[in-house]
Amino acid sequence: MKKLYDYQKDEQLNLFLLIKSAEEKKTRNNKPYLALILQDTSGEISANYWDASPSDVEQFKPGRVIKVDGRREEYNGAPQLRIKQMRLAQDDEPSNPDLYIERAPVNKDKMIEAFNQAVFDITNAHLNRIVRYIMKKYQREFFQSPAAKKNHHAYLGGLAFHTMSMLKIAKSITASYDLLNPSLLYAGIILHDVGKVIELSGPTATEYTLEGKLVGHIVLIYDEISKACVELKIDESHEDVLLLKHLVLAHHGEMEYGSPVRPQIPEAEIIHYIDQIDAKMNMMESALRKTEAGEFSERIWAMDNRSFFKSTVKKERPASEE
Amino acid sequence: MKKLYDYQKDEQLNLFLLIKSAEEKKTRNNKPYLALILQDTSGEISANYWDASPSDVEQFKPGRVIKVDGRREEYNGAPQLRIKQMRLAQDDEPSNPDLYIERAPVNKDKMIEAFNQAVFDITNAHLNRIVRYIMKKYQREFFQSPAAKKNHHAYLGGLAFHTMSMLKIAKSITASYDLLNPSLLYAGIILHDVGKVIELSGPTATEYTLEGKLVGHIVLIYDEISKACVELKIDESHEDVLLLKHLVLAHHGEMEYGSPVRPQIPEAEIIHYIDQIDAKMNMMESALRKTEAGEFSERIWAMDNRSFFKSTVKKERPASEE
Amino acid sequence: MKKLYDYQKDEQLNLFLLIKSAEEKKTRNNKPYLALILQDTSGEISANYWDASPSDVEQFKPGRVIKVDGRREEYNGAPQLRIKQMRLAQDDEPSNPDLYIERAPVNKDKMIEAFNQAVFDITNAHLNRIVRYIMKKYQREFFQSPAAKKNHHAYLGGLAFHTMSMLKIAKSITASYDLLNPSLLYAGIILHDVGKVIELSGPTATEYTLEGKLVGHIVLIYDEISKACVELKIDESHEDVLLLKHLVLAHHGEMEYGSPVRPQIPEAEIIHYIDQIDAKMNMMESALRKTEAGEFSERIWAMDNRSFFKSTVKKERPASEE
Amino acid sequence: MKKLYDYQKDEQLNLFLLIKSAEEKKTRNNKPYLALILQDTSGEISANYWDASPSDVEQFKPGRVIKVDGRREEYNGAPQLRIKQMRLAQDDEPSNPDLYIERAPVNKDKMIEAFNQAVFDITNAHLNRIVRYIMKKYQREFFQSPAAKKNHHAYLGGLAFHTMSMLKIAKSITASYDLLNPSLLYAGIILHDVGKVIELSGPTATEYTLEGKLVGHIVLIYDEISKACVELKIDESHEDVLLLKHLVLAHHGEMEYGSPVRPQIPEAEIIHYIDQIDAKMNMMESALRKTEAGEFSERIWAMDNRSFFKSTVKKERPASEE
Amino acid sequence: MKKLYDYQKDEQLNLFLLIKSAEEKKTRNNKPYLALILQDTSGEISANYWDASPSDVEQFKPGRVIKVDGRREEYNGAPQLRIKQMRLAQDDEPSNPDLYIERAPVNKDKMIEAFNQAVFDITNAHLNRIVRYIMKKYQREFFQSPAAKKNHHAYLGGLAFHTMSMLKIAKSITASYDLLNPSLLYAGIILHDVGKVIELSGPTATEYTLEGKLVGHIVLIYDEISKACVELKIDESHEDVLLLKHLVLAHHGEMEYGSPVRPQIPEAEIIHYIDQIDAKMNMMESALRKTEAGEFSERIWAMDNRSFFKSTVKKERPASEE
Amino acid sequence: MKKLYDYQKDEQLNLFLLIKSAEEKKTRNNKPYLALILQDTSGEISANYWDASPSDVEQFKPGRVIKVDGRREEYNGAPQLRIKQMRLAQDDEPSNPDLYIERAPVNKDKMIEAFNQAVFDITNAHLNRIVRYIMKKYQREFFQSPAAKKNHHAYLGGLAFHTMSMLKIAKSITASYDLLNPSLLYAGIILHDVGKVIELSGPTATEYTLEGKLVGHIVLIYDEISKACVELKIDESHEDVLLLKHLVLAHHGEMEYGSPVRPQIPEAEIIHYIDQIDAKMNMMESALRKTEAGEFSERIWAMDNRSFFKSTVKKERPASEE
Repeated sequence: MKKLYDYQKDEQLNLFLLIKSAEEKKTRNNKPYLALILQDTSGEISANYWDASPSDVEQFKPGRVIKVDGRREEYNGAPQLRIKQMRLAQDDEPSNPDLYIERAPVNKDKMIEAFNQAVFDITNAHLNRIVRYIMKKYQREFFQSPAAKKNHHAYLGGLAFHTMSMLKIAKSITASYDLLNPSLLYAGIILHDVGKVIELSGPTATEYTLEGKLVGHIVLIYDEISKACVELKIDESHEDVLLLKHLVLAHHGEMEYGSPVRPQIPEAEIIHYIDQIDAKMNMMESALRKTEAGEFSERIWAMDNRSFFKSTVKKERPASEE
Repeated sequence: MKKLYDYQKDEQLNLFLLIKSAEEKKTRNNKPYLALILQDTSGEISANYWDASPSDVEQFKPGRVIKVDGRREEYNGAPQLRIKQMRLAQDDEPSNPDLYIERAPVNKDKMIEAFNQAVFDITNAHLNRIVRYIMKKYQREFFQSPAAKKNHHAYLGGLAFHTMSMLKIAKSITASYDLLNPSLLYAGIILHDVGKVIELSGPTATEYTLEGKLVGHIVLIYDEISKACVELKIDESHEDVLLLKHLVLAHHGEMEYGSPVRPQIPEAEIIHYIDQIDAKMNMMESALRKTEAGEFSERIWAMDNRSFFKSTVKKERPASEE
Repeated sequence: MKKLYDYQKDEQLNLFLLIKSAEEKKTRNNKPYLALILQDTSGEISANYWDASPSDVEQFKPGRVIKVDGRREEYNGAPQLRIKQMRLAQDDEPSNPDLYIERAPVNKDKMIEAFNQAVFDITNAHLNRIVRYIMKKYQREFFQSPAAKKNHHAYLGGLAFHTMSMLKIAKSITASYDLLNPSLLYAGIILHDVGKVIELSGPTATEYTLEGKLVGHIVLIYDEISKACVELKIDESHEDVLLLKHLVLAHHGEMEYGSPVRPQIPEAEIIHYIDQIDAKMNMMESALRKTEAGEFSERIWAMDNRSFFKSTVKKERPASEE
Repeated sequence: MKKLYDYQKDEQLNLFLLIKSAEEKKTRNNKPYLALILQDTSGEISANYWDASPSDVEQFKPGRVIKVDGRREEYNGAPQLRIKQMRLAQDDEPSNPDLYIERAPVNKDKMIEAFNQAVFDITNAHLNRIVRYIMKKYQREFFQSPAAKKNHHAYLGGLAFHTMSMLKIAKSITASYDLLNPSLLYAGIILHDVGKVIELSGPTATEYTLEGKLVGHIVLIYDEISKACVELKIDESHEDVLLLKHLVLAHHGEMEYGSPVRPQIPEAEIIHYIDQIDAKMNMMESALRKTEAGEFSERIWAMDNRSFFKSTVKKERPASEE
Repeated sequence: MKKLYDYQKDEQLNLFLLIKSAEEKKTRNNKPYLALILQDTSGEISANYWDASPSDVEQFKPGRVIKVDGRREEYNGAPQLRIKQMRLAQDDEPSNPDLYIERAPVNKDKMIEAFNQAVFDITNAHLNRIVRYIMKKYQREFFQSPAAKKNHHAYLGGLAFHTMSMLKIAKSITASYDLLNPSLLYAGIILHDVGKVIELSGPTATEYTLEGKLVGHIVLIYDEISKACVELKIDESHEDVLLLKHLVLAHHGEMEYGSPVRPQIPEAEIIHYIDQIDAKMNMMESALRKTEAGEFSERIWAMDNRSFFKSTVKKERPASEE
Repeated sequence: MKKLYDYQKDEQLNLFLLIKSAEEKKTRNNKPYLALILQDTSGEISANYWDASPSDVEQFKPGRVIKVDGRREEYNGAPQLRIKQMRLAQDDEPSNPDLYIERAPVNKDKMIEAFNQAVFDITNAHLNRIVRYIMKKYQREFFQSPAAKKNHHAYLGGLAFHTMSMLKIAKSITASYDLLNPSLLYAGIILHDVGKVIELSGPTATEYTLEGKLVGHIVLIYDEISKACVELKIDESHEDVLLLKHLVLAHHGEMEYGSPVRPQIPEAEIIHYIDQIDAKMNMMESALRKTEAGEFSERIWAMDNRSFFKSTVKKERPASEE
């Protein structure tokens, strides 16, 4: 079935969408309308539903699936949906909200498998035990949490998918540089953002929690490592434990980005770069997916407000890579 | 008895001093000499001991007290001691090194009393118990530790003295602003720098420890609060506990100074300013103590390399304050 | 009587308010309306009055008191008043505009008394005479002027109240540090912002004057000190006079905030911090007054756009302070 | 045979070294000495040769191999060689200077092979031809040039080795992200620093050339691409050519690092990160090679003057990677 | 005939204007209107045309001349035109769009003459030939192009006029400083912004071209010099050619403004300042032209968002200058 | 007669020089020597006089003229004089110190004439009177003072010469831009740095005065204008007076360079640029005067530590300028 972003600009559309948010507003001359954000797995779009009656307000609540007849337009360079008419989806229609939520492009089982392999590759006993302990404690949340409130990987399973992508890059980099300790690097990557399961409220309508704001995911995961050691009776003064703690503290690279210390071991420096690469690839991918070839994307706030060009040049995998 | 800094520039002196450090060096044409730092409670001074024989090197070690005959001079604006001759102090002379070490200007008992009063003023039960627990655990180190490796309060007892001075200012500020929670403010001040007992190696020849470098005192004290809660069976999700943790994390005020989060409650913002005031007053006092009236001090690196003017204007306490 | 901010969000209200400003606007489809800012002593709120007739525009002018029937709402996180109906207050109702203007929480006589005491504590004769001269010259304006156009203490008497609060803190700080000269510190604090009576147009509809923009309050008060010396036949080359001039020039602490020189005496450094503390406490107080406990305040632009948390933890003065 | 950096601190040594530079100096009291930098393939070290006679000055010239009897010491944390005696190497001794020059750890043939494969993987015809043309034109210089005057890969073959390492990482990253065009990425990496063969004077006693200073390697390679197109009759307005030019211009990532434009296509953003990773790994490797386990390295200027910790924790390749 | 900006605020007007842009929009309650930008040679103004019918949309296209009856108003401090009615200009009315386009205040022939003189003053043969070659190649575009998309000299002929003004200042500066090479300075100024004829799309509805965005005018003109040398068989390794290339690369003064190298010869430093002076004079002139005497102008974004005061003081040329 | 900088590097010299400063020092092994700075009108050079006897120290004092036999050398890229022997100049030799002091390249009478013309061109009566008054008050100091302690125009008459050069540029700029008020611009330039006669101690051994440090030349000249108005009974609220005050306050262009307000009228913006041009031309001239053609100069600290290239390309005035 055709998805929201399979339609071109100015094309008529008729499809099922999930109401992500619905805010009751009034026009300047006091007429009520609904400011909606609608979504399916191809992305989300804003839309205004004019002249909303009280019963409209009552039925078109966030979490409901609707059938919309309208047109995909553009407003100030951002996609917008003009609604001609809409109604709630019925029971015999695809009305399950889960069908419309954006989620990681790899399914959970595949990801679990990848993590199991990575944990297996952590041959250092202390690090292996700490990682297993924390992953077990937060397994459910870890595979659901987004990697951020917005910006990058802001969807169900985004945190796990982001972490998995980083592990893949890390593997090829450790192969190139003897200087790096694979156990430390893998353990650091797996744990680096786990604090986000406490910092963020979850995959839908994601907000920062009070702990998230007042402490932040960097110190929250530090604390989890600390408590894991107590629980597992691992002496925290072991150098490998201390280095792991340093890795999670330093992974933002610079103090002004919230790391209380700057990287002081090669693994800490490298995690920072791998994190950057995967986050930025994800942001560019999202922005360019919505852009026509030969045009520039919308500006990406978290990349210094730059806009990226979608090339018309053909991409071709070299034979040697197939 | 006259102290080192009771002597004027270019005055002859003859007094007992402690060898703080002694480095064996060679002149460009290969003659051995000792680069010394000597001290008594009035401050420290550098001095070169030329043509040092192997037995000189052997006897003039750090920690020994010597009797020096020489002259106080100046080199590039910094005080320097020209040594005419020197010998080890004898047993019937004031040869106890403790007599020469710079230390807090208030004795430990007085400080303990002040802290007891402050802890008593923490009426919030959770905060009171956490503060007592940590202060008891680190009592010995807390009253010995300097507040920094260099810059401010870098002497025996400096950490406790700095903290006590902050409490005094805090008391008058809470009296002015209803917005502030005294329990929270006092608890935050008492704990804010306790992590330095782990970050620094101690009051003499102070260095950063490995934990100090890779984690830092801000996260170290956070971890202590966290562990105190476990030990005291205080649920860490209580808002007062969370705010205390936030206070210690945010007390550097800005992320680029190592706080992983910026102040988000008034008490956190205010601790930052009180910390600044006391640290800067201490640095200016140290620099101006060595400056003649009517002159500018040496530059203070930690205050953007500024130099301060020592006024010749008479100071007078107003009658109302006596 | 219940004030504007005694009402909760979404509560119906019916009360007298002063029109602070009233701008005639048109909706996109060309219907006239009035964009109002209304206030009483508890604060101000914006409101739109739709379908304003020419006679409405005529009568609902700034400076008039109105009786409003409406509801306190919220728009984009900022409080807003939805007007059901409104009319001018009548003569037998509380129609005096002065009753609605925000002003310093301490009355003028109390403040005058506090300043008299502070001036009395300036025992240095030159400084005492200069301060008396300038305060007499600008007495009326000083006790009326706000401390700023917006941000902090932006109300009638705000300048005097801000200065008085700083004196209180200064008193406790001079008591702790012998290094400081109380006469100099008090004189510097009293004068530091007096230039604002020239820089700003006054307590209502405050704007920058041309002199305020092209010269600024820092140099304006410097000039006043200079002229006071001529008038009082005090030789300006006296060190105490020069230091006072330095204090007012340096009180913004950093050149990028408009001080032509950075602090070079301890009193100058300390005034800067006391100024910061009082300004920031005032901004946090204002923001948190409008915030529900357990929520974050609106962002405070002048504090790096941070938002502050209003704690639900009970505050308690320690017994020792009562 | 034992190399320079196989000796520990304070160990006696007796080995052949190349004179990298020799500056005639005088001590403060006017005695001549030679300030030498000596090297073998394990690294370089400074040394002073005291009381140098005119004939010493004559014979101990840069480029000569000497036999040295001395001791490895440390001065201000940097390694230094104390010379007891030294003489020129004789013809029947290993007197060929080439034996002592630091060079890429992979030999030229291996590198050529890697580049051939990478060029083969550039399936886009324009890009393939441009890359072949430029690589042929500068082949000799490319495999000799260092990648920088100092900081990273500052040795014979360093430029080629750095480029090859980047290609390896790029290969694994293109495999992860469909968004990237492999032809463009590989062509961009191969060419990104080729301008350094013009910017720098060559592998020994490397200096910036006048063109290097006034134009810089970024614009120099841009110009080469431009000229290659003229030569190869490729229309420069083809989008693939324009993108390649953009890649080399933007590869420093930020304008303040000398890129006249910031990255505006994903390949440009990614090259910047891969460049950073390889340069920084190389700098950390160099610094940590000279550091004892359990100690911190010397400060690395090009990494914000940070110092890195050499861990004592055992490194182990996971079984899955063998 | 009276122009747009000869009318005061709130004055009725009735005049011919060119439609610069016309965007079809909808009000919040879905009524169509045209958001217009109208202009004549005195400047441009925005205006909304409410209740636009399909035939209105059809006829009121960019590039058409209209007759407007309306009033000059102000909205948020920016001039705005309220349209009472409007219609297309007829053939016997001044309907030629060229009559309304803002253009350089000096006509093209005068400018050509000035450039001829300047080129004549370039006595260095290489530089003279290069300048002539490039100016001939781009003559038509050079005298049409604006100097920027917005900010300064953003009108037909703006690039040539800006360059000519710079030459005038340069002439007086070279007369004062022997250090400067006039040939080099004049050649550098003439060419410095010629790359803008490629970077920008032309004098109307100016946009950045793809090359403009991905390469930028600084490197584009570098490339033109390089190609001119090939064409003219001038060896590019001549120092004068290299210095000219350096001049165009360095003329933005700082790397963060897009120069890949900073000025390293006096002529490069000075061009940067002359460029700044002329650009800023132009921006201040434009802003103050629209400002009443005694008021502050709108904020100028490219001058750090400053606002400038339009003085009421009489200007008088000194007799000596007439 | 040949001057110091007429000698090449490594050339023997024998000439008269003035001792600018002479500091008694000791070598590491305690031998006394004199660290001298010697000068004639071509510039200054440092030199060490080894094994200085007490009578040497007595006779070779600053302010004495000596005859030196030695060699011009280079040390760390800076010129240095190696002294073979030296003696005091005798009465029948050129022993007048004034013959050796660096001074403005234009004599005082010529400069006075230029200033008279400029003052004559200030047709605005208020500004004319204020300028005359202040110039008369400080005439003697103005024509003696350097323009700075170091960096630019740091010689006798430097302040007047710098100001005169700025006037020359200003004249050509006002001719180009009608926007500028010549009276205001000339008055602003003449006065902008007059505060330096109070800020600096004078042309020899220049130091900052206490007023210079605590107030600074920007506010000092503001104060002089203020007092001139009182003296001349000119009402300070006249707009022209206020603008003149603004000019001197704003002439450093940015607040972080010490201007308490940023430029808000075109004349203020332009003075800043003219000041920059003349200061930088002077610094580049000084540095390049000591540089061989084809080489780079020493780094110029006040120009972001850049080094400038001395071109070998022939300079030629165009015929049209002769």
